[in-house]
Amino acid sequence: MKNIVWHPNKVTRNDREKIKNQKGCVLWFTGLSGSGKSTIANELEYELNKMRYHTYLLDGDNIRHGLIKNLGFSDLDRKENIRRISEVAKLFVDAGIITITAFISPFIEDREKAREIIGTKNFIEVFVDTPLEVCIQRDPKGLYKKALNGEIKNFTGIDSPYERPLSPEIIIDTKKYDIISSVSLIIDYLKNKKYLDFR
Amino acid sequence: MKNIVWHPNKVTRNDREKIKNQKGCVLWFTGLSGSGKSTIANELEYELNKMRYHTYLLDGDNIRHGLIKNLGFSDLDRKENIRRISEVAKLFVDAGIITITAFISPFIEDREKAREIIGTKNFIEVFVDTPLEVCIQRDPKGLYKKALNGEIKNFTGIDSPYERPLSPEIIIDTKKYDIISSVSLIIDYLKNKKYLDFR
Repeated sequence: MKNIVWHPNKVTRNDREKIKNQKGCVLWFTGLSGSGKSTIANELEYELNKMRYHTYLLDGDNIRHGLIKNLGFSDLDRKENIRRISEVAKLFVDAGIITITAFISPFIEDREKAREIIGTKNFIEVFVDTPLEVCIQRDPKGLYKKALNGEIKNFTGIDSPYERPLSPEIIIDTKKYDIISSVSLIIDYLKNKKYLDFR
Repeated sequence: MKNIVWHPNKVTRNDREKIKNQKGCVLWFTGLSGSGKSTIANELEYELNKMRYHTYLLDGDNIRHGLIKNLGFSDLDRKENIRRISEVAKLFVDAGIITITAFISPFIEDREKAREIIGTKNFIEVFVDTPLEVCIQRDPKGLYKKALNGEIKNFTGIDSPYERPLSPEIIIDTKKYDIISSVSLIIDYLKNKKYLDFR
């Protein structure tokens, strides 16, 4: 390679989005444990993939034992946890991907931090609004039982607060919406806001 | 939402790859500062994007001020640095993306750790082999000058070693290959190994 001056062609976010026929964004699901976040997020990704949109889901399954495995449950670690997930989500947006995150993320401050890192025009807060008593009744992982017995400390909804979003982009009232209609609601939002088929 | 048992459709890596007509992988560029890693990586991404393949480039520009901004230059921090980049690259592979990383990554141990985290079948080590004296002569960022003056400590090639890869998947001898032919070499590798057009 000669020592020439070379101006490399930089691929931009827009170049990556163009071949995907979509805009990168983050659908940041928030809600109590057992509220239905993961179920709706998974079904949403399934529908988008069927429509040949390019998605990725960040959740406990692929994050907890990897990127954040060296973090604990202190306040400081919780913030670093959200920061790392947000920074990764930001990279996925830059890659042109419709990125879905599914974490309880109970604190307004943390979600606002995520919005700040990711950029508000890329950030779609999806509040899965399910009453606590319904979540306790479902208790899919048996965690509420343990929390109520005092076996788990600082459990959201029991001995740690869940701060409801003040003005989320999307609210899913699960008393009114089943899974399929929740997914439709979100896909309609993405279409209306031109995240899909934007050309 | 009724309290029904619901088996969500999980989107797999394969589902994400199918709509992209490619296999996710990591092209892990390694080489001295000024060896041409970023230049080749950028041109490679440009060519792949023109061919409508789905790529992402992880480099200092999008990583340093984000995901690893709270890390310094100690041995421990260097390892954590590589670990986080590897974990993120692994997520991009799972998303079906041809992921390109461009970091000096001078130590065999670190690159082997990256290979282990990402998975050897997904990991393509690309050694950009440019003689140190050529890199010093180019010195695009003026860093060698500073290192030789003692203004920067632990600079790879000057007062910190660069450990050449023992058996990288791809070697680019930049005395023989210019930028365009380096990119062709890599794209041919991806085709031969069925990372592209794999159906």
